[in-house]
Amino acid sequence: MEDDTCTRAVPVVPSGGPRRGIGLDELHLTGGFWQRLQRSNSRNTLHHCLEWMERLGWVANFDRVSEGATDGPRPGWQFSDSEIYKLLEALAWEHGRTGETWVNEMLESLVDRIAAAQDDDGYLNTCFGHAGQQPRYADLESGHELYCAGHLLQAAVARLRSVGPDKLVEIACRAADHVCREFGPDSRAGLCGHPEIELGLAELGRALGEPRYTEQARLFIERRGYGTLKPIALLDASYFQDDTPVREATVWRGHAVRALYLAAGTADVAVDTGDTRLLAAVERQWERTVERRTYLTGGMGSRHQDEGFGEDWELPPDRAYCETCAGIASVMVSWRLYLATGEVRYADLMERTLYNVVATSPSPDGRAFFYANPLHQRTAAAGIRPGEVNPRAEGGVRAPWFDVSCCPTNLARTLASWQGYAASVEDDTVTLLQYAASEMRLAFGDDGALALSITTEYPHDGTVRIEVVETPDRAVNLRLRVPHWAHGATLADRAGERGAEPGWAHVRGALVPGSVVELRLPVDPRLTWPDPRIDAIRGCVAVERGPLVLCAESVDLPQSWSLDDIRLDAARPPRADGDGALARMTSVQPPSPPPSGYPPYRSSARPPRDDGEATWRDVPLVPYYRWARRGSSAMRVFVPTA
Amino acid sequence: MEDDTCTRAVPVVPSGGPRRGIGLDELHLTGGFWQRLQRSNSRNTLHHCLEWMERLGWVANFDRVSEGATDGPRPGWQFSDSEIYKLLEALAWEHGRTGETWVNEMLESLVDRIAAAQDDDGYLNTCFGHAGQQPRYADLESGHELYCAGHLLQAAVARLRSVGPDKLVEIACRAADHVCREFGPDSRAGLCGHPEIELGLAELGRALGEPRYTEQARLFIERRGYGTLKPIALLDASYFQDDTPVREATVWRGHAVRALYLAAGTADVAVDTGDTRLLAAVERQWERTVERRTYLTGGMGSRHQDEGFGEDWELPPDRAYCETCAGIASVMVSWRLYLATGEVRYADLMERTLYNVVATSPSPDGRAFFYANPLHQRTAAAGIRPGEVNPRAEGGVRAPWFDVSCCPTNLARTLASWQGYAASVEDDTVTLLQYAASEMRLAFGDDGALALSITTEYPHDGTVRIEVVETPDRAVNLRLRVPHWAHGATLADRAGERGAEPGWAHVRGALVPGSVVELRLPVDPRLTWPDPRIDAIRGCVAVERGPLVLCAESVDLPQSWSLDDIRLDAARPPRADGDGALARMTSVQPPSPPPSGYPPYRSSARPPRDDGEATWRDVPLVPYYRWARRGSSAMRVFVPTA
Repeated sequence: MEDDTCTRAVPVVPSGGPRRGIGLDELHLTGGFWQRLQRSNSRNTLHHCLEWMERLGWVANFDRVSEGATDGPRPGWQFSDSEIYKLLEALAWEHGRTGETWVNEMLESLVDRIAAAQDDDGYLNTCFGHAGQQPRYADLESGHELYCAGHLLQAAVARLRSVGPDKLVEIACRAADHVCREFGPDSRAGLCGHPEIELGLAELGRALGEPRYTEQARLFIERRGYGTLKPIALLDASYFQDDTPVREATVWRGHAVRALYLAAGTADVAVDTGDTRLLAAVERQWERTVERRTYLTGGMGSRHQDEGFGEDWELPPDRAYCETCAGIASVMVSWRLYLATGEVRYADLMERTLYNVVATSPSPDGRAFFYANPLHQRTAAAGIRPGEVNPRAEGGVRAPWFDVSCCPTNLARTLASWQGYAASVEDDTVTLLQYAASEMRLAFGDDGALALSITTEYPHDGTVRIEVVETPDRAVNLRLRVPHWAHGATLADRAGERGAEPGWAHVRGALVPGSVVELRLPVDPRLTWPDPRIDAIRGCVAVERGPLVLCAESVDLPQSWSLDDIRLDAARPPRADGDGALARMTSVQPPSPPPSGYPPYRSSARPPRDDGEATWRDVPLVPYYRWARRGSSAMRVFVPTA
Repeated sequence: MEDDTCTRAVPVVPSGGPRRGIGLDELHLTGGFWQRLQRSNSRNTLHHCLEWMERLGWVANFDRVSEGATDGPRPGWQFSDSEIYKLLEALAWEHGRTGETWVNEMLESLVDRIAAAQDDDGYLNTCFGHAGQQPRYADLESGHELYCAGHLLQAAVARLRSVGPDKLVEIACRAADHVCREFGPDSRAGLCGHPEIELGLAELGRALGEPRYTEQARLFIERRGYGTLKPIALLDASYFQDDTPVREATVWRGHAVRALYLAAGTADVAVDTGDTRLLAAVERQWERTVERRTYLTGGMGSRHQDEGFGEDWELPPDRAYCETCAGIASVMVSWRLYLATGEVRYADLMERTLYNVVATSPSPDGRAFFYANPLHQRTAAAGIRPGEVNPRAEGGVRAPWFDVSCCPTNLARTLASWQGYAASVEDDTVTLLQYAASEMRLAFGDDGALALSITTEYPHDGTVRIEVVETPDRAVNLRLRVPHWAHGATLADRAGERGAEPGWAHVRGALVPGSVVELRLPVDPRLTWPDPRIDAIRGCVAVERGPLVLCAESVDLPQSWSLDDIRLDAARPPRADGDGALARMTSVQPPSPPPSGYPPYRSSARPPRDDGEATWRDVPLVPYYRWARRGSSAMRVFVPTA
């Protein structure tokens, strides 16, 4: 750990390669989209998660173990420990970023209770292995013990990279050592039904410079794909990605979060072990999955049954699962692939997913969340029971807590560490990847720092103004990401104003204090058409604006209209309207239906035509991330064309 | 039981109303579509089901109870007893129809083993209530005890109506009496997670003239809809139809088989108690569900997650569940509503469902089955493990047995009693509802019989020739169903040839031996268009022929084509080809995709157009019921238009 960046709060630090992410304390948000989300996360979500987990007894499960009182019923799913660990990770990043004392206290108080529950040999789990419980590792398919351990390790990494070694790190090392003994090359050849331990071991190995952990992560990855895990009811080996070895797989399949955590851990191991073929396998899987199994929002997961990927082109908007956690996991994978390859497409997908999946889930106050993020909601939801645990909030109402409540704490750790995805440094080149009003200060060792002041209303406005505040004693280059949708962007710098194609825009001329760079990204509303192989949205179009996907909500329709019957006039471009758009639409009268009591199909030589006189109106479209904020509503992203 | 029809093998005999179904022995198939299915059922499926259930130990579960050996693990799901009962019902109808001795022997041998497992107080279940098992009725949500009992009662009805009271009937009466004592008006106000007991009690009540059973069925129906059942994980009260009282519900929702069995039992109770408002509720639910939640095949159930109905217009072809059992249950409901109301639409839906769901499930030899019946299979399935228990055969390969194996025995009882749906008698009017080559002989009490000889290749040919062989000593009218799709049908009788509109065609002139009636139904291929509110198949068309839905299979495409890319030329009518059709199609080159590594959506002012020169070819479409018979294939019913 000679590089000073390693003492910074950086979520992912590959052991090799030219690029590094920035530390959370290197970028201070000064306003805008992500600051609002990060603030409601700090102020509300962290407490909210703790309150719910105390109330439901998930935290007290640790006390029950330490008090030897595990004989009675245990509240929560097998994996509830992981929620406390994800909250710990969120608290660690939050404290690393802000230095807030209350955050540190909340964290330390939890760590004390967790530490007391750790067994002498390092095993730590509140569901297995104690009086009245199933034995350790009795149910690798569903038990989630290694999954929980992986999240513990990730939390410890956040702590290690923000305050250095502490009690949490010590617990994690003991747990990791236990896992290595139990599942090492000469021990039990098991693997966990839910990948995650790979990620935790790999990053802890990096943070501590401990190759045993990396090696154990590699072992878990190589063991997978041989049908070791027993199917759970209707869920076969592909559900766990145990159907095909990782290096042979060509696409992600099965449970989306599982597939994506596995891919992220695999990328880490591939980079750290210099296994370029393994890395290439993950890139190949990413590519086909993005091209054929990804929603316009960046969402992944087409099926409710297994919370999983469907087949190529199976992308139903109404039954889109697009779990919030899968969006977060997709960002994690893309970030690792970006660091490994430097390719802009990974940062492009991250932006799409951050704005349209990650930002969609929480309510503005950070106290309610979407679990699934469909692109079409046919009927306004009946509602959520505010004080109660709810099912997975499929119905278009954000819920305060779920039966399986993985998303709130996952959001908490992601929002607390958003800065980590905003920029990267490669040799003397600084690359801005995500745009937000902020002050940035990047240290260049003994040469001083590059400080930038960034002013922007992005994503609602496309102008990003970057003022150079301070420069180091060596020449530094600045590079800006021009998103893939930003055709017609311009860049103004000391060399003048010029067009900037999607990809990388290099700032020309030396950076000197006071110099200003201005990137202008076109954020006019634009029509976006699906590949015709996506059967479920044939004949439809969506409207996007900058990185934001827009949607039509029933609350914005004339009262006599239904979202079932609207048609969009694609011959007229939608116009900007606030931070949404106005699109010209009509409501059709469905063609004469079959006689009453017959299925909704009609035989005729010619296709039936919509009846009725068309009344055209400008209908507002709002950013998708904001849907259902004005109360329960029906919604659709893709609208049939007239 | 004064009416002689009650001693006949008639599946459903309402206690009132003018219509009766015919007895299974009143119609003898002499060839054709349903004879083939009924024969493979007789020759193979009955044995096949028994062999699997012996092999898996589901039958032996009864022996374990009678031997007091229930302490060890019990093979099969909680509801496996019901599979033996459905097989019993199939055997009872089969014997009632054919008088075959081996069928009777198989049945009696099973009944002996079942009888030995019945508790002294009439309780009969191999999963609950004995040493080492959960107590009786400890899990009404998932335990399926009353569901199993309902199937036992239905089997007993089949026996009662074919050979009269016997040991099976005795067992069933003791079980029914137990249920009435345990769940009667002054006892436990429970209900079963899976409706079925209502059906069994109602029909057994009819067959025995026992109003207590009808009353108990009524009680179970009225108790439902108040959230008594606890949610199972993500499945809420609507999954069990416990969200809304039956008489208030406007549409079917939740688990499709549950919803449909409940509706069938409710129709029975409504008819027998003269509760016209309750009957109207079922009719209303049928109507909206058929108009908005039903597939072109007649299939019901749009979701895999809960094997359930989706919302209105949620009818994805690829993830269509359309469980075989839901198709059977739909036929059961429609038959009861037809008997109650005499409306032709119920018989029309039955035909659609019988040909395109029920007939699709079994392989020609009756030894493999589809569980789900999707309308679009994107990739040819990897295959089924022939000797093993398989999951629910979603992948386009019929499987010999499933983990949950409800469909094979359900098919067996349905095919064994197909005759029961073919015709009805109302006063002096005989109505032919389903067409098949057959000899029919209907007794008119002391007046003799009407005998008809029916010659047809239906559904592959539309001509149905009916020769009057014998007439009773009173005037009898003959009425024929003209299916709703049969525009341009003609009827020739003694009054000459004339057009016959969809609905009822009345034969004119007295029926005398030797007179011939000929119905000509147009079975040219026709294009069928979906309601535009069905988003998932917008811009697509299907081809039907007579009552048969056709489909395109990948094995019939030119080798360089993919089902993902075909377009149908709807301007040229498809032509007849064997019992399928030839449709003019091309394969398109998808418009230029986004750059590699980007999601499959592209922004542009104009909609992208398919590239490439169109090569048009005649592509065969085959009847949907035959898909995947030539090996694993991709398939689609709805094809995008050019």
